[in-house]
Amino acid sequence: MTGTLYGLGIGPGDPELITLKALRLLRESPVIAWPAPDQGDSLARAIIADHLPGNQIEIAIRIPMTPGHFPTQAVYDKAADEIAEHLIAGRDVACICEGDPFFYGSFMYLFGRLSEDHRVEVVPGVSSLTACAAASAAPLAGLNDVLSVIPAPVAEDVLARHLQQSEAAAIIKVGRHLAKVRGVIEGLGLMDQAHYVERATMENQRLMPLSQVPEDAAPYFSMILVHRRGEAWK
Amino acid sequence: MTGTLYGLGIGPGDPELITLKALRLLRESPVIAWPAPDQGDSLARAIIADHLPGNQIEIAIRIPMTPGHFPTQAVYDKAADEIAEHLIAGRDVACICEGDPFFYGSFMYLFGRLSEDHRVEVVPGVSSLTACAAASAAPLAGLNDVLSVIPAPVAEDVLARHLQQSEAAAIIKVGRHLAKVRGVIEGLGLMDQAHYVERATMENQRLMPLSQVPEDAAPYFSMILVHRRGEAWK
Repeated sequence: MTGTLYGLGIGPGDPELITLKALRLLRESPVIAWPAPDQGDSLARAIIADHLPGNQIEIAIRIPMTPGHFPTQAVYDKAADEIAEHLIAGRDVACICEGDPFFYGSFMYLFGRLSEDHRVEVVPGVSSLTACAAASAAPLAGLNDVLSVIPAPVAEDVLARHLQQSEAAAIIKVGRHLAKVRGVIEGLGLMDQAHYVERATMENQRLMPLSQVPEDAAPYFSMILVHRRGEAWK
Repeated sequence: MTGTLYGLGIGPGDPELITLKALRLLRESPVIAWPAPDQGDSLARAIIADHLPGNQIEIAIRIPMTPGHFPTQAVYDKAADEIAEHLIAGRDVACICEGDPFFYGSFMYLFGRLSEDHRVEVVPGVSSLTACAAASAAPLAGLNDVLSVIPAPVAEDVLARHLQQSEAAAIIKVGRHLAKVRGVIEGLGLMDQAHYVERATMENQRLMPLSQVPEDAAPYFSMILVHRRGEAWK
């Protein structure tokens, strides 16, 4: 019997936003894998630290991040090889994914390398998308709204077009693109409908209207929500 | 002390996909409210039935659904009044929401009526969006993909425009619009990249390429996922 690779969505940051299913599989798996920066602690591991039984093999997937570049594929090749060895030996591996594994998650790199030859199951999690909406205390989308999720690194005209054509938008991966995004939103006259959310559901969560954000750059875990309709739910 | 209204995301259907936080608040609240059709059982209540302590006041919000029309606002006026009475009397009320309360959820109607005068907290849940991606065993979006969530009732040209301009799309609320949606996808040459998911994570889940769906209408809980990029994660 070969093992199963689980892609476990552990939610946006609050350890209580893990699902019963992800928690069960996390505890039952003899091997866990988690992403981490090149140096320093893993946020994903910190989220689930209190849930761990303490006797598991752990695989750190250390990802060197160069601003503006996607991480090197060699890191995922090596991690996939290490995970495959455990699967072949019959050990299940739980890969811990912030938010949801298939919503802009780096789990797709392991999935692409391992899903043809091994059993892979993805357990969906609470994504940052709905966590930010809950934190901002405003519905994300309703009725027949088109909702667009737009990564901030896209070109300004692409960003502007989607903002104009969608009733609701979530701009993700804001980071060093904050000034550009703000410029586009201002140019479209949508500043009053734009809300900034940083580190939703984490202890250092920060919320404010986009017009009040003082910085020109934001952390990676920040999002801007725009509602063209205004407060349609009222 | 007045009570708090909780909008609890309970996930897409599998009872194990509720979060620890939603489960705790569900069990602690003296009053629970759930949506149901005009006649018959509540799917939301069925999902959490095994988690209930058994001594709670229950409010059924029975919503007459006329195809093509949004539910009558009078139902939400009445439910909001009933919930407000409990809040004023100091009792917390947990409103149970399939998926996520702020992702196309009817909870927005209660939020709109009650959030100005009462404490309202939304607990995000696993949405059908990421549940369908997990079920279909394909990443929803990654890298700098624009992802558009498009309700099937929108006009054909709106649907076509968003499908052309987004790397990834999720068409929700398919129901009786299946034939129209299929026609648009076929016209754009995207049939081979379109996947159909019905009742994701529920016992009667059904998956297939859109080209193989025999019917011209689908249940409300169905979604079509389109990846213009093809399998970019490979």
